[in-house]
Amino acid sequence: MSDEEFMREALAEAREAAAAGEVPIGAVVVADGRIVARARNRREELNDPTAHAEILALREAGEKLGGWRLGRAALYVTVEPCPMCAGAMVQARLGRLVYGARDLKAGAVESTVNLVRNKAYNHQVEVRAGCLEDDCAEVMSRFFAERRDGDGD
Amino acid sequence: MSDEEFMREALAEAREAAAAGEVPIGAVVVADGRIVARARNRREELNDPTAHAEILALREAGEKLGGWRLGRAALYVTVEPCPMCAGAMVQARLGRLVYGARDLKAGAVESTVNLVRNKAYNHQVEVRAGCLEDDCAEVMSRFFAERRDGDGD
Repeated sequence: MSDEEFMREALAEAREAAAAGEVPIGAVVVADGRIVARARNRREELNDPTAHAEILALREAGEKLGGWRLGRAALYVTVEPCPMCAGAMVQARLGRLVYGARDLKAGAVESTVNLVRNKAYNHQVEVRAGCLEDDCAEVMSRFFAERRDGDGD
Repeated sequence: MSDEEFMREALAEAREAAAAGEVPIGAVVVADGRIVARARNRREELNDPTAHAEILALREAGEKLGGWRLGRAALYVTVEPCPMCAGAMVQARLGRLVYGARDLKAGAVESTVNLVRNKAYNHQVEVRAGCLEDDCAEVMSRFFAERRDGDGD
């Protein structure tokens, strides 16, 4: 499967998050050509400040693959990771990160700081940005537009 | 209870981590003057790259307090948080962070980058560094010295 095909799976997770009233971000982890973990943002549902899609997907991948080192895995996520999630990828020694839309306010790959390809740390992650960027951005902008419209309800 | 007393509880968690063969870092979360969550690093045990003491403690605190916003809580941790954990504190809108020893290689408060008091983000955390610093550093240095000595076993 191509990067775009895996990103469509992450987008499906993001749309499920939107339907559940969560900020619509989805992620999948791929190892040896197949999806080993998939998750969506569940922060509100779980009352968990760390329950971003990427964190949940990395945890599931570690469990499935039987170790916390994910050097042979790639993580696909619809939006540029925040510092927590980018830091988690370095902790996991993640092999590759593919993301869709930028997050100008909190993105920790290119927007506010670069944590995943930072020589200060003991691991650098290979990155592809902008995969299905328009689709990923549209899921976010639609969610926030609908939420604004709903304020008058 | 004083900061030092809460830090002694975090140190007790760190020593349990050492006994379990995990990098010895411990944390507690305090709200309204009492400990609502306590955790130690469990990365190896759980095969979870995100299972640092701080992440586990923040998750438990969110669950106990019934929400992911931890603005009225303080987190005590024996070692300066890494980027993942510092980022999680910003995500949690944590009120206050107290830590013991510096982590020159990966610390994300003063050593490599400052993520918790960074105007780029939508929340800044109040920080006290160096609480029981010598005790916290000693737990770490003893663990790594013993591990080196054990290499010949």
